Amino acid sequence: MTAQPRLVEVRRKVLKHNDLVAEDLRRRFREAHVYAVSLVSSPGSGKTAFLEYTLSKLNRRHRVAALVGDLATDNDCKRLARAGSPVRQITTGTVCHLDGDMIVHALDGWDLTALDFLFIENVGNLVCPSSYDLGENLRLVLMSVTEGEDKPLKYPTIFHTADLAAITKMDLATAVGFDSAAAMENIQSVRPGMKVLHVSAKTGDGMEEWLSLLESKLTEAHQPVAG
Amino acid sequence: MTAQPRLVEVRRKVLKHNDLVAEDLRRRFREAHVYAVSLVSSPGSGKTAFLEYTLSKLNRRHRVAALVGDLATDNDCKRLARAGSPVRQITTGTVCHLDGDMIVHALDGWDLTALDFLFIENVGNLVCPSSYDLGENLRLVLMSVTEGEDKPLKYPTIFHTADLAAITKMDLATAVGFDSAAAMENIQSVRPGMKVLHVSAKTGDGMEEWLSLLESKLTEAHQPVAG
Repeated sequence: MTAQPRLVEVRRKVLKHNDLVAEDLRRRFREAHVYAVSLVSSPGSGKTAFLEYTLSKLNRRHRVAALVGDLATDNDCKRLARAGSPVRQITTGTVCHLDGDMIVHALDGWDLTALDFLFIENVGNLVCPSSYDLGENLRLVLMSVTEGEDKPLKYPTIFHTADLAAITKMDLATAVGFDSAAAMENIQSVRPGMKVLHVSAKTGDGMEEWLSLLESKLTEAHQPVAG
Repeated sequence: MTAQPRLVEVRRKVLKHNDLVAEDLRRRFREAHVYAVSLVSSPGSGKTAFLEYTLSKLNRRHRVAALVGDLATDNDCKRLARAGSPVRQITTGTVCHLDGDMIVHALDGWDLTALDFLFIENVGNLVCPSSYDLGENLRLVLMSVTEGEDKPLKYPTIFHTADLAAITKMDLATAVGFDSAAAMENIQSVRPGMKVLHVSAKTGDGMEEWLSLLESKLTEAHQPVAG
């Protein structure tokens, strides 16, 4: 067997292992009644600004924490900590995505029952994170108006595996000539029926809808655990 | 051995194989006197617009062709073909980067001696393409003003492996409050001495410097092959 098929085979085993870890994380989140949200996007789509806004609003009424993945630096962790919620950095080195084991390790010592929401900001990458289940309740894919309307067609897998999409930096839509109808059509063609938010973390536009959606999910997380 | 260390070991073998293929590609480019340029960036940084502009100007005076990598769709290939140069799409499926074998396969049947420049547009990804040598003479990393000045710090490897950087969408710099000095400082801190272009494929600003730089490289490609 040459190296390439062997890589595919070993990668399959890694993903199978990850699925088991993610299943265990999902059980832990359910039992602790914490609602876990992961954020995926390209580098520079505005995940951190979006999350900073979200934390600063939610932590007035709820117990909120975040994990933030990057290849290098803890800049995002420092930036998010300003919102006043507990935040931990996961530094992945050369690894292009977060996986379940990294989440387990990062949660070490945290009492999940003391939380309502846990946010997980993935490494900026529209490809690799799509394969790794993190046990999250909701996966949000973000794309900014500056990236072009065709991204869902060019990176379909990440849209397939997401539960919700947010088009970010709407304050720049006019300046970049963003074609909202084309973007919506492209998202719907790869993921029919997916809900799409239009937001700007700068102006706050659309963020109320997002926060309301999150709060409605708390009821779901607070359901008694079956079995 | 668990799956994770085995993945690392197999990946090392894949990269070693890729290095051999890339070495062979480099020899072929040198012997054919073709100057090969690869483009790497996040999704939506404007690689295709930059390349479209480059091809449309260069092909008036030189023999130019391009390979363009995407997970899905041949939209970029169609778009680039409008510039009038031969273009071939490499569709990678779920693979997050181009590798040497994909380039060899895509070049099949092309007479390299009939070309002056070959451009290779990688999959939009600031992480994985950094590990794969494609035998190119020059690797250009692009980042747009809308992505934030911190990208070099957060994705250092891709800047380490690049020869030249271009800050794109300069026409939007004022609208997004881009801090050029901070971006330059961040690039220089991860890759001291790297030349940085400031360009807009929309207005053409800075593109003359890029085209002049490319033309100066032709002399290099046309040197007699040593040994």
